[in-house]
Amino acid sequence: MPINRIAIGRREEATHPDALRAAFGEFVSTLIFVFAGEGSGMAFSKLTEDGASTPAGLVAAAIAHAFALFVAVSISANISGGHVNPAVTFGAFIGGNITLLRGLLYWIAQLLGSVVACLLLKFVTNGMTTSAFGLSGVSVWSALVFEIVMTFGLVYTVYATAIDPKKGDIGTIAPIAIGFIVGANILVGGAFTGASMNPAVSFGPAVVSWTWTNHWVYWAGPLIGGGIAGIIYELLFISHSHEQLPPTDY
Amino acid sequence: MPINRIAIGRREEATHPDALRAAFGEFVSTLIFVFAGEGSGMAFSKLTEDGASTPAGLVAAAIAHAFALFVAVSISANISGGHVNPAVTFGAFIGGNITLLRGLLYWIAQLLGSVVACLLLKFVTNGMTTSAFGLSGVSVWSALVFEIVMTFGLVYTVYATAIDPKKGDIGTIAPIAIGFIVGANILVGGAFTGASMNPAVSFGPAVVSWTWTNHWVYWAGPLIGGGIAGIIYELLFISHSHEQLPPTDY
Amino acid sequence: MPINRIAIGRREEATHPDALRAAFGEFVSTLIFVFAGEGSGMAFSKLTEDGASTPAGLVAAAIAHAFALFVAVSISANISGGHVNPAVTFGAFIGGNITLLRGLLYWIAQLLGSVVACLLLKFVTNGMTTSAFGLSGVSVWSALVFEIVMTFGLVYTVYATAIDPKKGDIGTIAPIAIGFIVGANILVGGAFTGASMNPAVSFGPAVVSWTWTNHWVYWAGPLIGGGIAGIIYELLFISHSHEQLPPTDY
Amino acid sequence: MPINRIAIGRREEATHPDALRAAFGEFVSTLIFVFAGEGSGMAFSKLTEDGASTPAGLVAAAIAHAFALFVAVSISANISGGHVNPAVTFGAFIGGNITLLRGLLYWIAQLLGSVVACLLLKFVTNGMTTSAFGLSGVSVWSALVFEIVMTFGLVYTVYATAIDPKKGDIGTIAPIAIGFIVGANILVGGAFTGASMNPAVSFGPAVVSWTWTNHWVYWAGPLIGGGIAGIIYELLFISHSHEQLPPTDY
Repeated sequence: MPINRIAIGRREEATHPDALRAAFGEFVSTLIFVFAGEGSGMAFSKLTEDGASTPAGLVAAAIAHAFALFVAVSISANISGGHVNPAVTFGAFIGGNITLLRGLLYWIAQLLGSVVACLLLKFVTNGMTTSAFGLSGVSVWSALVFEIVMTFGLVYTVYATAIDPKKGDIGTIAPIAIGFIVGANILVGGAFTGASMNPAVSFGPAVVSWTWTNHWVYWAGPLIGGGIAGIIYELLFISHSHEQLPPTDY
Repeated sequence: MPINRIAIGRREEATHPDALRAAFGEFVSTLIFVFAGEGSGMAFSKLTEDGASTPAGLVAAAIAHAFALFVAVSISANISGGHVNPAVTFGAFIGGNITLLRGLLYWIAQLLGSVVACLLLKFVTNGMTTSAFGLSGVSVWSALVFEIVMTFGLVYTVYATAIDPKKGDIGTIAPIAIGFIVGANILVGGAFTGASMNPAVSFGPAVVSWTWTNHWVYWAGPLIGGGIAGIIYELLFISHSHEQLPPTDY
Repeated sequence: MPINRIAIGRREEATHPDALRAAFGEFVSTLIFVFAGEGSGMAFSKLTEDGASTPAGLVAAAIAHAFALFVAVSISANISGGHVNPAVTFGAFIGGNITLLRGLLYWIAQLLGSVVACLLLKFVTNGMTTSAFGLSGVSVWSALVFEIVMTFGLVYTVYATAIDPKKGDIGTIAPIAIGFIVGANILVGGAFTGASMNPAVSFGPAVVSWTWTNHWVYWAGPLIGGGIAGIIYELLFISHSHEQLPPTDY
Repeated sequence: MPINRIAIGRREEATHPDALRAAFGEFVSTLIFVFAGEGSGMAFSKLTEDGASTPAGLVAAAIAHAFALFVAVSISANISGGHVNPAVTFGAFIGGNITLLRGLLYWIAQLLGSVVACLLLKFVTNGMTTSAFGLSGVSVWSALVFEIVMTFGLVYTVYATAIDPKKGDIGTIAPIAIGFIVGANILVGGAFTGASMNPAVSFGPAVVSWTWTNHWVYWAGPLIGGGIAGIIYELLFISHSHEQLPPTDY
């Protein structure tokens, strides 16, 4: 979302000739992000012969996701606004920073990118399981709130460092901030919910391993958290400070 | 504190209509920071069944705090100056860079953010303890000096990279520097005092777990260290180089 | 490749008087990168007495490569375009962003830098083996696709953050992104193929330890992946958006 | 050295009224750096009851040094040029970028900062040993070359990202690059020589623990490596590209 001139800044139409190109950018970014993120978990399983998670494993997962999301956001920033996450797209939509049609196009691209990443992972690891996200020692309601809080932090970060027109120099390091808040949250939530914060990240492994237990949590949590962040940030820190034409297409 | 135009650069009044908005920014930033920082320790406890700290655990804590503080500073930089720490606010006050009233408002917001983060952590982890900071193998005076030295480094960094009008390009990476000096110091002090460097970070877990042993160390140390840094940096590197109107409200 | 004014932006000739100086820059950068990357694996072998890879070891390898590649790209960005990788040079060539002759000169410099780094490593470690890259639990075809996918991500990142004329502020953090995508991918592929993504990185250890089993995979994979990334990015995101004179020298 | 306007860019005199202020900046930066770097090793000793180094311990040391040096360079960049290392000061002197007198002043400040950091560490840890650097399984000549190669990489990085007038946008991330090349090299050399690359870093622990075995290696290696880097970079990439008045004071 950093250099959000295309997808967000100008509020261009979903039917814009660049929309498909932007969706392709989201597809590639999500593929690269999920390949590294989900793949790092599979590497841990291989090295520990499916051992239980450890602090060193959590560090590996946090770094893989932080580094890869930072890169995934950077490489699509100028193409699509660098969402790489249906919850970010939803938060941008709620705050009036992307149209409904373009948002749906992004969702499809993100989900597809995640599925293709998991299919590739299955092939290159000679058939290992792409483990789906699941709860560990917490109730489903705790997990829901967990994902809400963590995704609130992520989408609030996207707004403050990338969408806010007053971002200034902070915009230069926005992709790093977006990647690193996910890395930090994995060091907390990774031990309880897997710390998805991203429906696409959970969707690919669920499809390829065909595991849907509690899958709804990984949609409801991120979308609620991202939506709240979008509303709060837009109302408190953006809307009051500049004129805004009402979006007309949703 | 990076883009300190609002809170610091213009030395605006605490009664400014934006003061409450800025305080809300401090609240959200501290919440996100403490959620990741304190939460990473709880994840370690879960994965190791309350095992003793290990080098891998210290690395996890350092990365969680470094990444999350970097983000917390980034997202409130343009809103409140990005303090996220009563010792930073105190150091800014001592150097004459924030008014007393506005500083008190920040303190309340920071402490509240930390308490809410710990309450959320208790809920989402199905009731785990939010462990308070405590000493490990050092006397209370050693711990006090430990926190003084580490917080001196943190607030000196805030001054050099964010408050100093001569900061130049360094300002762009200021939030990273502020987050990473805390990460580095945790790899030292984490094994002895917990390496708080921030009264808000210690306050939330103390309230929620109602543990107050040696709690004063985590106020006295950071405030003394942050105050010294503010005085030294302001006198040596800022005051001498430009005209300054005396603040009138404290 | 970041500040690609010299090697890429102006499409200068391979016979340019600065070409040799640029090649020397590639030599030094690759030497520094391989010294840290390959060397970190040798340090792991020493500390664990040649123990099998662990998650902590993978984290060490990922950080060593991520940090060192970021630096290696930074220090040659203004000199040679910061390739430090024959697959990046090939991807730049495929997209029409470097001449054939200059590309060959870079390849020689990169391979030489890697060999010298490994010779130095052998000397300073009192004769330890510079272990060659090899497959672990995957077929040769899986490994090939693994290297293709990972290098596609790397070279796509180089294009999006460094070569693309529309990169804007993202260009400032391009070397970090280039280093960190390699770090993230090592946390996946390190457990299966060693995650080279770079023929020079595999070549030096192979020469000095004289081990050539499956060595071709570490050339074919990166070159195919890098080539695909160069073609796709150039066609979709660069060519369509500006006039381009056809390159005349290849 | 990043924003090297004061110490390097203008080639000001050592007798400049700002020279003492700059030396104080070097003192504080080195103190903060050594406190985190040496201290992280003492924390490892505490947590493992003086256990042998492990990959997780090497990661902790690498991150502590990388983060803290990045910060130490950032906070003195605008004050003293951000050397924080006698070998960097020597490399800058060899390349004609600092005067002899000012360089000596920096050396004294850096050594003093390291000693004070170690004295503080001894006090706050209730008297733990500040372990001196030593060789592990390598001959003294291997160690010497090890330190030469690693410091060559460090000082070459300082020149390319901070001193070179053509550094451009790379200058913004120079302190990160300078910190991270040290972090990467620690993941190699930490297991063999301790990976000092900095006479001040070795001097403080040696004084406070009064251990001088092979101490000369940690002066000779960094000074030779830093000197070579200064000469090569200055001759190849700086001198040829712009007019330069011969320095007159050494």
